[in-house]
Amino acid sequence: MGLAPLGHVLFKNFLNFNPKNPKWAGRDRFVLSNGHACVLLYSLLHLFGYDVTLDDLKNFRQLGSRTPGHPENDLCGVEVTTGPLGQGIANAVGLALAESQLAATFNKPGYDLIDNYTYAIFGDGCMQEGVASEAMSLAGHLKLGKLIAFYDDNHITIDGDTNVSFTEDVLKRLEAYGWHTIWVKDGNTDLAGITAAIEEAKKVTDKPSVIKVTTTIGYGSKQQGTHSVHGAALKKDDIVQLKEQFGFDPEQNFVIPKEVTELYAQTVKAGAEREVEWNNLLSKYSKEFPELASELTRRLKGELPAGWEKKLPTYSTSDPAIASRKLSETVLTDIFEVLPELIGGSADLTGSNLTRPKDINDYQPTQDPASGDYTGRYIRYGVREHGMGAVMNGIAAYGAFIPYGGTFLNFVSYAAGAVRLSALSHHHVIWVATHDSIGLGEDGPTHQPIETLAHFRAIPNLQVWRPADGNETSAAYFKAITNSHSPSIICLSRQNLPQLEGSSVEKASKGGYTLVEAENPDVLIVSTGSEVYIAVDAVKELAKEGIKAGVISLPDWHTFNQQPQEYRLSVFPDGVPILSAEVMSTSGWQAYSHQQFGINRFGASGPYQDVYKYFEFTPEGIAKRAKATAEYYKGQTVKSPLHKAF
Amino acid sequence: MGLAPLGHVLFKNFLNFNPKNPKWAGRDRFVLSNGHACVLLYSLLHLFGYDVTLDDLKNFRQLGSRTPGHPENDLCGVEVTTGPLGQGIANAVGLALAESQLAATFNKPGYDLIDNYTYAIFGDGCMQEGVASEAMSLAGHLKLGKLIAFYDDNHITIDGDTNVSFTEDVLKRLEAYGWHTIWVKDGNTDLAGITAAIEEAKKVTDKPSVIKVTTTIGYGSKQQGTHSVHGAALKKDDIVQLKEQFGFDPEQNFVIPKEVTELYAQTVKAGAEREVEWNNLLSKYSKEFPELASELTRRLKGELPAGWEKKLPTYSTSDPAIASRKLSETVLTDIFEVLPELIGGSADLTGSNLTRPKDINDYQPTQDPASGDYTGRYIRYGVREHGMGAVMNGIAAYGAFIPYGGTFLNFVSYAAGAVRLSALSHHHVIWVATHDSIGLGEDGPTHQPIETLAHFRAIPNLQVWRPADGNETSAAYFKAITNSHSPSIICLSRQNLPQLEGSSVEKASKGGYTLVEAENPDVLIVSTGSEVYIAVDAVKELAKEGIKAGVISLPDWHTFNQQPQEYRLSVFPDGVPILSAEVMSTSGWQAYSHQQFGINRFGASGPYQDVYKYFEFTPEGIAKRAKATAEYYKGQTVKSPLHKAF
Ligand SMILES: [Ca+2]
Ligand SMILES: [Ca+2]
Repeated sequence: MGLAPLGHVLFKNFLNFNPKNPKWAGRDRFVLSNGHACVLLYSLLHLFGYDVTLDDLKNFRQLGSRTPGHPENDLCGVEVTTGPLGQGIANAVGLALAESQLAATFNKPGYDLIDNYTYAIFGDGCMQEGVASEAMSLAGHLKLGKLIAFYDDNHITIDGDTNVSFTEDVLKRLEAYGWHTIWVKDGNTDLAGITAAIEEAKKVTDKPSVIKVTTTIGYGSKQQGTHSVHGAALKKDDIVQLKEQFGFDPEQNFVIPKEVTELYAQTVKAGAEREVEWNNLLSKYSKEFPELASELTRRLKGELPAGWEKKLPTYSTSDPAIASRKLSETVLTDIFEVLPELIGGSADLTGSNLTRPKDINDYQPTQDPASGDYTGRYIRYGVREHGMGAVMNGIAAYGAFIPYGGTFLNFVSYAAGAVRLSALSHHHVIWVATHDSIGLGEDGPTHQPIETLAHFRAIPNLQVWRPADGNETSAAYFKAITNSHSPSIICLSRQNLPQLEGSSVEKASKGGYTLVEAENPDVLIVSTGSEVYIAVDAVKELAKEGIKAGVISLPDWHTFNQQPQEYRLSVFPDGVPILSAEVMSTSGWQAYSHQQFGINRFGASGPYQDVYKYFEFTPEGIAKRAKATAEYYKGQTVKSPLHKAF
Repeated sequence: MGLAPLGHVLFKNFLNFNPKNPKWAGRDRFVLSNGHACVLLYSLLHLFGYDVTLDDLKNFRQLGSRTPGHPENDLCGVEVTTGPLGQGIANAVGLALAESQLAATFNKPGYDLIDNYTYAIFGDGCMQEGVASEAMSLAGHLKLGKLIAFYDDNHITIDGDTNVSFTEDVLKRLEAYGWHTIWVKDGNTDLAGITAAIEEAKKVTDKPSVIKVTTTIGYGSKQQGTHSVHGAALKKDDIVQLKEQFGFDPEQNFVIPKEVTELYAQTVKAGAEREVEWNNLLSKYSKEFPELASELTRRLKGELPAGWEKKLPTYSTSDPAIASRKLSETVLTDIFEVLPELIGGSADLTGSNLTRPKDINDYQPTQDPASGDYTGRYIRYGVREHGMGAVMNGIAAYGAFIPYGGTFLNFVSYAAGAVRLSALSHHHVIWVATHDSIGLGEDGPTHQPIETLAHFRAIPNLQVWRPADGNETSAAYFKAITNSHSPSIICLSRQNLPQLEGSSVEKASKGGYTLVEAENPDVLIVSTGSEVYIAVDAVKELAKEGIKAGVISLPDWHTFNQQPQEYRLSVFPDGVPILSAEVMSTSGWQAYSHQQFGINRFGASGPYQDVYKYFEFTPEGIAKRAKATAEYYKGQTVKSPLHKAF
């Protein structure tokens, strides 16, 4: 309730939107970062004419309703899913970043087609979260002048008064980040002050603005200013007095006075008119700049340009061994021009992740050609993995972009909160996760992922690719780019990998396939990424002992699981024991194999060849275990691990 | 190299330590948060007489060496493992916090037994990480006056000049957090300036201090000031000129001039003398305060008080159904007094996590009895999960404490970077992770863990408890507290759980056991936490159809995996198909079951009973799948999933 006056002013007088077409590209973006206050958002959406009904409001937090306990982006008018604190404000940075890049790319004198503000409300909780710190520091560096954030300063968190844990000077901190700061001291009643602050913020074009709005939580309630109104519902007598105080009939619930409905109807009408104006401007622009216009329209629809995938490189066994991070660089370089929606970056590991195609511009606020400008398509995220993840979610939510960002696989875990929301929200986001195993060598256990793939593979709706060679790397990008509803993590090696006989973009695009066929095999080895070629060599070792073995390459479980069961059983057939081989936790591999070879401990620092040898991930080491597996199951009826009883 | 002058001044003139007893309790703590600069640390340890040999230095980053690519805390003189950026400075906050609490608890007039400084060096990378932001804001709030941090301002990150991503005003930001700030403008040569700054910082006792030390990376090298000296080795000719410039023989490597050795020997001697003085003080203290002294000595040794575990509550089936978060609160309340090493807290969810035993004091900087003081044992971490995790690691590393901290299970993922380091570093840390499933109900998918247990169970050396009732909750705490080398996450329900027939602290302490015995069972159901009682009810449903079923409760995989194979096979025997049932990702469960029932999608918002019903986690729903499992394997030879071929 403390935020209602701000919400009213913002939606009524500033926010540019058409509730009848909530996806209108010209709209301002609004993010409620403190998602637990979603009753306010749902109510505003209802009042301002979005397709959110009174029944939706009544079914708040009920099973199957459109109004869950925290707002999710499949509801019209909800730009991004919020609730996990700190994410929303970081998404807002991404939304504003996307706007500035698209505007710099497409606007022409007289045609400010892309010209929207991003408004966000955040609370103390968001401000305490590191992800917000990372993104807000970046926003200051990037001088995102059309980002206007409201700090809901209500002196309350769940633990009580903010004084128990949070006594920093928030505005000073944001100033240090390069933000413009404004304070509205009475956010409960000073609507003119809120209005003036937003107008001031809009005038500052070279810095993001924060408006601290000091409010009383539960304003008007008998409990106002206490944390008991933070999570819990108001008592009945309190609701009665509250309604009377503001001139409502205490006997009636969920009733909107007619005057209010009419007032808001005007805003709805104005929004619809603005969309018409915008469409007219686009029509004129289309005549003057037909190519740009069709490109912009295509991107706003989320359609890929025809034939882009022909740029994906393919390889044969005569090509040299190349690290898959380097193969990834080649893919990015080859497709970057045909896919202008790609906007890359790295969390300060550009030279290691190889995420920056050659001869491109950085996305930077200055006009210094050495450092880039807003038309640049490469973002220097700094050492801010979690912020990068949440900013990428915002860029993806804006539309017209496919963001990718690099870091070491092990440090994607720092961004777990954002990765999970990518998957939940169906954001089209790609992580370029290099140095994907003990194969990174000398940096040692602190940098070597062990549990990491078990973690990410267990997230619903997330592609987790670990390509074994050039063709598989192209397949990973093909699926990451075409499957727009599932984010991806592409895991890439630091060390060189040979080009495999039998791999192809088409086969790998199924998520898994038979790489080395064997007639009546004694054992199959299933593997991923940098271990596949070792498994192939293990087959040769086994042949010396008369053991027939085949190899399955399974670069992405998520994609493979979507193939028809018949295909899947052809890859993982009945009758053959299967050994998995991957230099990480074996957890999860039991779903695809009868026996598992992995590393269920932390890694080791040393040259990568030594480390692989130490863990016996050599042709001999894998062959030894494959032989043991074949012998263990000899004479037994072996069924495919893919069968399900229900 | 840029940090060498600072390291020299600090180790020579300020740092209080005895290299011959690196664990001396009275020592100052030193943390190198930018762990990639560990050559400096290893060199200092060698020069100042620690058990780090020239051979150790020569074997830097080699397999099996004591000097991995990033410093790990099993090397003498390395207080905490660093490398993952941001963690070290947050650990330093924990080290300083622990010191202040222990000092407030044990020191007496004339007996400043606990009186050490915590020094930390951090770089731009750390400052960009959210985890550092969270911990440094907390440190400011807590007024940790004996924390002195050095900001290595070298204008360089891996991506190049810090200007590409990091243009914030670092000192202003730290001021906003409540830190005292100092700037040494020439950190390359101004040793007197560094000295004066440290002396000033020591005089400011009510604020943490940061000393910005502006240096040139690779000072003296031909490449000084460029990011090419950040990760890569210097070229040979550059090394030659560098050595000549500083008066060394360029033909010799790994040679320490005799004068240097002698200079440092004095410091070593002084350190040994200081330990003797400290031991004398402790002896006098022991006479005047024998009880306090024996308590302090016990805690410093990491020994638990005899019989503490008798305080753990036990339950029988006549006790009411209670939420396990509430059972956890009872445990904490019962053991808090007998285990003064426990120091609790929550990331702003105290009322939900139920982590605060009644009638205790908060740990706070003021002397206001309402809000607590430094003797308090409950920390208001704020909404800072990652910071909390890293601070707890620091508290544990200090010794004499067992920290625990609460948040929702889903948001332990925000702290993944710190959790992994707890496990790698063997920190004795306990996460109280409530609202551990879809059973949290209305808060919905953004808050409901799905992949979370698959993630944490795959981390080596981590206990992940999900107790099913009161006895199992006591067992979880028993193991979390007695297994001091393995951190724990204790996953607890929001909803009530009945007390189970057949559970006991002793049985559950094995990590897994047969809860419901069955003679010649047709099927076994293995489950954890809030699903166990539903599985028990499913057995009754199955009996109606003449199907004999038993139930295995498996509250912690890590602990269970350490039991003898014979015991494990008695719980997961040959000859019976096993179904797992847990309201989360099934990933990993294949290691303990033949068929899996779980939730491989995101959750749903609604009253928890409705949500459980929706996902068919009811006695009938589990029974249906158990029946299908029994039928599927009928007539087949079924082996225990625990058998291994190698
Ligand atoms: Ca608040
Ligand atoms: Ca730096």
